[in-house]
Amino acid sequence: MKQSFRALALFAGALALQSSQAATQTKGEAEVDYRQSLYTVIAGNFHPLGAMAEGKMPFNAADAKLRAERIAFLVPMLKEAFPADSNGVGHTSAKPEIWTDTAGFDKALQLLIDKSAALAVAANSGDADKVKAAVQDTGKACKNCHDKFRVKD
Amino acid sequence: MKQSFRALALFAGALALQSSQAATQTKGEAEVDYRQSLYTVIAGNFHPLGAMAEGKMPFNAADAKLRAERIAFLVPMLKEAFPADSNGVGHTSAKPEIWTDTAGFDKALQLLIDKSAALAVAANSGDADKVKAAVQDTGKACKNCHDKFRVKD
Repeated sequence: MKQSFRALALFAGALALQSSQAATQTKGEAEVDYRQSLYTVIAGNFHPLGAMAEGKMPFNAADAKLRAERIAFLVPMLKEAFPADSNGVGHTSAKPEIWTDTAGFDKALQLLIDKSAALAVAANSGDADKVKAAVQDTGKACKNCHDKFRVKD
Repeated sequence: MKQSFRALALFAGALALQSSQAATQTKGEAEVDYRQSLYTVIAGNFHPLGAMAEGKMPFNAADAKLRAERIAFLVPMLKEAFPADSNGVGHTSAKPEIWTDTAGFDKALQLLIDKSAALAVAANSGDADKVKAAVQDTGKACKNCHDKFRVKD
């Protein structure tokens, strides 16, 4: 048992040293890194859906279903991704209003959660037109939150 | 309909401009960014399980279940996260052996997928000892792959 714990401790150390940057991260920096990583994974799965909806990629029902399920799973994880001590830390585009207008932010995020869930339902139907409409609704919910709570590039 | 597509195009543009860095990313760099982000989200959810298994955090059955379900969902996504043109791109710790010893890498990744699935089953039982053992098994499967296929820090 002791040896197993040692293996785990080694593993935990290996994780912490995933990059030399990670080793020197503060708690707030690690939180921002986690949040931005979560958005990157969401965006990476939304891109093919956007391309299908825009006709830049042929509609693929199986891939649309897989991507939409991932988005519906990942988006609610954003609810934990804005802890107070990540406000204003590092290279972030997160506006302070996220933490001052919490009701407004929660509403905008809930809209995205709802639209993402509807996207997964649409994708499960295999109907290309329903998927397109749901992708557009989800994209608008992203943009709605970005317009209010994200610094413009 | 045209207006909807316009909103989507605007949204796609907003995503591409998530950071000024993203705007200048090559395809390979974006793939490395996606992969590292996926690992960051997996690690962020594994950390509390590791802390519970090591007794650094009290065992919380509901949180363990949530984290383990996320890990079991996210880990299989790693199968797509090593496209050939991401080999050797940017600040990566991924060894070239990932792309030369594909059978070995696939085996190491499959072990992690299997252990992550078993972790979710263990966490669903609510039994702290089963969770601890499964966390250790998952940690060893991480380390097994890192030892062979990740550059040491």
